[in-house]
Amino acid sequence: MTRYDVAIIGTGPAGLEAALTVKARNKSVLLIGPADLSAKVRKAHTIQNYLGLPNVSGREMQEAFLKHLESSEIKITDEQAKNIYAMGDYFAIQTGGADAMYEAETLILATGLPQTKGLPGEDLFLGKGVSYCATCDAALYRGKKAAVVGYAPKEEDEANFLAELAGEVLYFPQYAGEVRTVPAVKVIREKPVEILGDRSVRALKTDGGEYEADGIFILRETIAPDKLVPGLEIEADRVKVTPQTETNIPGCFAAGDIAGPPYQYIKAAGQGNAAALAAVRYLAAKRKQ
Amino acid sequence: MTRYDVAIIGTGPAGLEAALTVKARNKSVLLIGPADLSAKVRKAHTIQNYLGLPNVSGREMQEAFLKHLESSEIKITDEQAKNIYAMGDYFAIQTGGADAMYEAETLILATGLPQTKGLPGEDLFLGKGVSYCATCDAALYRGKKAAVVGYAPKEEDEANFLAELAGEVLYFPQYAGEVRTVPAVKVIREKPVEILGDRSVRALKTDGGEYEADGIFILRETIAPDKLVPGLEIEADRVKVTPQTETNIPGCFAAGDIAGPPYQYIKAAGQGNAAALAAVRYLAAKRKQ
Repeated sequence: MTRYDVAIIGTGPAGLEAALTVKARNKSVLLIGPADLSAKVRKAHTIQNYLGLPNVSGREMQEAFLKHLESSEIKITDEQAKNIYAMGDYFAIQTGGADAMYEAETLILATGLPQTKGLPGEDLFLGKGVSYCATCDAALYRGKKAAVVGYAPKEEDEANFLAELAGEVLYFPQYAGEVRTVPAVKVIREKPVEILGDRSVRALKTDGGEYEADGIFILRETIAPDKLVPGLEIEADRVKVTPQTETNIPGCFAAGDIAGPPYQYIKAAGQGNAAALAAVRYLAAKRKQ
Repeated sequence: MTRYDVAIIGTGPAGLEAALTVKARNKSVLLIGPADLSAKVRKAHTIQNYLGLPNVSGREMQEAFLKHLESSEIKITDEQAKNIYAMGDYFAIQTGGADAMYEAETLILATGLPQTKGLPGEDLFLGKGVSYCATCDAALYRGKKAAVVGYAPKEEDEANFLAELAGEVLYFPQYAGEVRTVPAVKVIREKPVEILGDRSVRALKTDGGEYEADGIFILRETIAPDKLVPGLEIEADRVKVTPQTETNIPGCFAAGDIAGPPYQYIKAAGQGNAAALAAVRYLAAKRKQ
């Protein structure tokens, strides 16, 4: 398996700038995230203060960024990182995508602000029935009952995939509009409020009732950083970083909104640059040993 | 006198981005620095990793930045800040320009890296014969001997101006090329090595000799930050800042190369953004009292 020098999680300004800088420093880079970039960029109305791009719309900024990536020959995987494990010498990254697992010596987290608070019980039962990745964990629920909470239409594919293996799949869409799932998936338009269980998950409680489930898949656009990378130190809901963007895990850096305010495009890009250079320095020091 | 909300010193990426952000937050902004922007931008060959401006030359980046300022209706004074005094409630800024003195409630330092080390004796005799501003201090040397060390051709004007008042002016150009000074200015092509004196300046020592002087004017493109703002805390030649860009002086912030590595355009811009928002927050807190 290819082991990349630097894996970057997130395709907002922090992640993109980090990728450009890693590439400029001649290190191999893996850029994991949505190919249409962060929704926070794409959907912005007007951005006045990104120096060099006067009064651009989110769409125009997205285009400028994509053009820059293209000219630097940087590819985006168009996957979501689901689980990341610090293996000591490297990081193992599970995406649930075609290439399921990646490896990299260093890691830059740039996934933006988590959009929703976790559910009560989510922390407690993570890995005990709660999962963020259907394609990663589906095999565990063969013939069993699964509940899927989807925060975007693309998660319907995950529910459909689960239905091929699980005995029963309940899908709880947390967005408006039509839902296109296979007939085996039962769609329930209710809002989850708590995850119930004892030693492991027993049921999903919603604003409309209680649904028994052996596994509960919670599929959000961003996964809270400490759930994504077990052991990561968090402070006031953000990844705790030094001014050089180091986290508490050696070789793991964080930049952009995930690393705290100000929540601004140019600040995120600037911090992505700092994270890239910190990762490159870390690699150099490690290889000298 | 107009008292600005925020004065920004320096027209590199940090200063420019700070100005855009202060303006976007509807505060009054004074932007002091060269109108053709920092030499570090202008003279760059190619910049690969300023996200959104793929593979631009320094000239192209300069144009993009100037266009942005214009569209945001931000003016540059085209002056150099020579002395800044923290007055408690505000900052007084001396430029030696037509409007000689400015006032602002908060200050953002973004002057880049000092380009040359100070001369031995420079610290010791600052304010005791050593000055960074001919137009500010010329009156003190009426009929006396002045030595001027100029690091750029534009300083010739300062020497010419001094010659109208001082009894004798020696000019030591520290650059190649023709020198166009008035006949009363004596040009000496030697390199200064030390400033000599007892309680005040007595002479300038060069690699070619010793020249008696009552005043020595040292005119560099950037003035070391702790000389520019007396009392500013420095650490390893850089202004000491918190992650929120605060210096040890309340209401004074620093961003860009002056605030430490990495020395990169996009990082400087990102930190300028953070400094602007910190200054705006500081103003809001102060006005609530």
